[in-house]
Amino acid sequence: PAERVAHFKQDVWSLFTRLTLEHKAVNLGQGFMNFPPPRLIKDAASAAIHTDSFNQYPPPRGRPRLLKALSDHYSPVFGRTLDPTTDIFIPSGANEGIYCIFAAYLNQGDEVILFEPYFDQYLSNVTMNGGVPVFLPLIPGSSQEDGVIPSSSWKVDMNELEKAITPKTKIILLNTPHNPVGKVFSEEEIRAIGDLAVKHNILILSDEVYDHLVFSPSKHLSIGALPEYRSRTLTVGSAGKVFGVTGWRLGWVMGDAPLLAPVLAAHTRVCFCATGPLQEAVAEAFEKSDSNGFFDQQTKEYESRLAALTKPLEEVGLPYTLPKGSYFLLVNTSSIRIPQGFSFPPEISARGRNFEMCYWLLAEIGVTAIPVSEFYSDTNQHLGEDYIRFAFCKTDDVLEEASKRLLRIK
Amino acid sequence: PAERVAHFKQDVWSLFTRLTLEHKAVNLGQGFMNFPPPRLIKDAASAAIHTDSFNQYPPPRGRPRLLKALSDHYSPVFGRTLDPTTDIFIPSGANEGIYCIFAAYLNQGDEVILFEPYFDQYLSNVTMNGGVPVFLPLIPGSSQEDGVIPSSSWKVDMNELEKAITPKTKIILLNTPHNPVGKVFSEEEIRAIGDLAVKHNILILSDEVYDHLVFSPSKHLSIGALPEYRSRTLTVGSAGKVFGVTGWRLGWVMGDAPLLAPVLAAHTRVCFCATGPLQEAVAEAFEKSDSNGFFDQQTKEYESRLAALTKPLEEVGLPYTLPKGSYFLLVNTSSIRIPQGFSFPPEISARGRNFEMCYWLLAEIGVTAIPVSEFYSDTNQHLGEDYIRFAFCKTDDVLEEASKRLLRIK
Ligand SMILES: CSCCC(=O)C(=O)O
Ligand SMILES: CSCCC(=O)C(=O)O
Repeated sequence: PAERVAHFKQDVWSLFTRLTLEHKAVNLGQGFMNFPPPRLIKDAASAAIHTDSFNQYPPPRGRPRLLKALSDHYSPVFGRTLDPTTDIFIPSGANEGIYCIFAAYLNQGDEVILFEPYFDQYLSNVTMNGGVPVFLPLIPGSSQEDGVIPSSSWKVDMNELEKAITPKTKIILLNTPHNPVGKVFSEEEIRAIGDLAVKHNILILSDEVYDHLVFSPSKHLSIGALPEYRSRTLTVGSAGKVFGVTGWRLGWVMGDAPLLAPVLAAHTRVCFCATGPLQEAVAEAFEKSDSNGFFDQQTKEYESRLAALTKPLEEVGLPYTLPKGSYFLLVNTSSIRIPQGFSFPPEISARGRNFEMCYWLLAEIGVTAIPVSEFYSDTNQHLGEDYIRFAFCKTDDVLEEASKRLLRIK
Repeated sequence: PAERVAHFKQDVWSLFTRLTLEHKAVNLGQGFMNFPPPRLIKDAASAAIHTDSFNQYPPPRGRPRLLKALSDHYSPVFGRTLDPTTDIFIPSGANEGIYCIFAAYLNQGDEVILFEPYFDQYLSNVTMNGGVPVFLPLIPGSSQEDGVIPSSSWKVDMNELEKAITPKTKIILLNTPHNPVGKVFSEEEIRAIGDLAVKHNILILSDEVYDHLVFSPSKHLSIGALPEYRSRTLTVGSAGKVFGVTGWRLGWVMGDAPLLAPVLAAHTRVCFCATGPLQEAVAEAFEKSDSNGFFDQQTKEYESRLAALTKPLEEVGLPYTLPKGSYFLLVNTSSIRIPQGFSFPPEISARGRNFEMCYWLLAEIGVTAIPVSEFYSDTNQHLGEDYIRFAFCKTDDVLEEASKRLLRIK
């Protein structure tokens, strides 16, 4: 195999999905919903498939109706009119959109700054395109008396960020709301990052796939909505996250035409186009959701799911980071002692203490979490060792069963 | 932008789709069906979407039911049992599958042999992954008295092929049935190519997306079905082509487990997984089609579509290459004289005589074809200059209207 893939380990998503099934654990690992998407998006998908006009190649940029719906939805967010024919395209999922941004902008040896912990796919997306990741840890604050760490306390050290910038720095990857921390970056933080990008002429890849999952009273701010940074910013979104259809593989990349064009050119070669009929359905969902209250309703549901998961953690006294957005919760496991003599399969022990914790948790407690060490570079592994991530995009009964099981920890 | 995308011109697919709409031409350009896919695949898609079990991330390898259906369908073709858990995966369309094969196997400077004319996406898929394309033209035979060139007469010069092999040659790309020639490679040709691959230890990427579209009495042969070449062969297929759903973006890559694993690893990073609910529908279509006669029926329909298109060409005396498979027809336009003084938009004249021919054809005659020069390297442009490609995956009324218009040529 080629160097660019030869070093890949088994991805955590496939690994923990398999282990979950083997151990019949409650799956709070990979972030997918176990509840249905809105009825209207499913009906729209059927209709599109049966209409026969949408089963053939859509344009590489995407179906015009979806591009228009995105423009209608996001133009107010960005405070300018997004031209559906030049400022947006539809990748085969946000993941492929991010991959194509790196394909379009990284030459061999160009550097990309990633804040740790980072969604693990970023790393391979950078290196597969010849880029060199430069890591900068978010520094968590200390927990409050009740064991809660505000997600806002995980902070970029802006001096360290400026030190990390070199003449080779091409892109800073900002992820807000943040996976796995649940942090929603403040305007002040966004401006500090943006100003450094301007000063050093760096592009900003803003991964905002959780933009519609922000809990009251927090507010999501798109860096691309701030005029100072707009011309250097590419923003990525996800239908899977917005409408609960992670398996549909539809996302969007938005940005000024000259910045976006090379990314679409890459996508046109990598996948050619994204699945057509489901684009019509996402378009319809956007068209209706701005007026039918879906987004507010969804946020409320997520707030109550979050509460259902923090309850048992408080009962057993496990410190956690309270997210302001996303559907992830970080838990600090440093107080948990795995019983002496508990044995791990080699594929787990080979990957360190944090994987062992997650393995013990799924095998003995019966709940799956993702080891956050996977979201840190080799050098900074130790910073992630204590953290595991739960996903709470789950129905009440699943969260209740998980809670019951988590109470066994103490 | 990065070097790997900076040189891309506007892709012919988007360009000729736009021109077709502007000029209201009959679209025999891009290969997509203007007729519906089988009813059962649409119903299965609706059912999967409404079942709610399939709207979240499928495994990166693909949904188990589809992997099983592919194993059941293709194991007899390959004369061995394809293990659905190791020997197959589902990319987001055959295009992404091919891209990922290059991502998985090419290091900087590795060479890939492409037979000209080649499906244009191969070229960018190679170069985006640091590969160097090495071109070898298929040499057409001369036309018979009736102006028909057998597609089998387009031949690889095996001596030239061996001369093109260097220590850097990593992959030979075989495409059978061939786009755009419609050639179905014979066992003798396949063995000659395979033997050179064995002798020089080269991988074979066999793009067989038109495997189900082969006209009687020709027979498709998969190089991976021949035991001598199996362990070095990756075979690519396409649901879009087999079931008439080019916009669904589902394909498959098949091969021995050790060869396939790195390709799945690449796909897992590039797209993570392919659209889930539509995988269930393709599974159901395979499950039923082996017994319901769909494939035979479909082939007969394509044979009659081909006949509908060759008729006007014979009437106006344009030589063409008779395809044995695929839904493409090559036409030699060297006898056509474009009227003096006809003027072309700059985006067309910039791309040469062959683009001008296609432009004149769509603007004046009212039928869109694809300029085959786009399927040749810069060096060998002249070999493609006389050829244009028509797609005949169209309903009778469209082919009739095209025929009527083509008669205006003389
Ligand atoms: C690549 S699948 C992982 C899904 C996801 O977004 C997450 O769980 O972080
Ligand atoms: C990349 S879209 C082109 C579709 C196709 O396979 C063809 O027309 O050759």
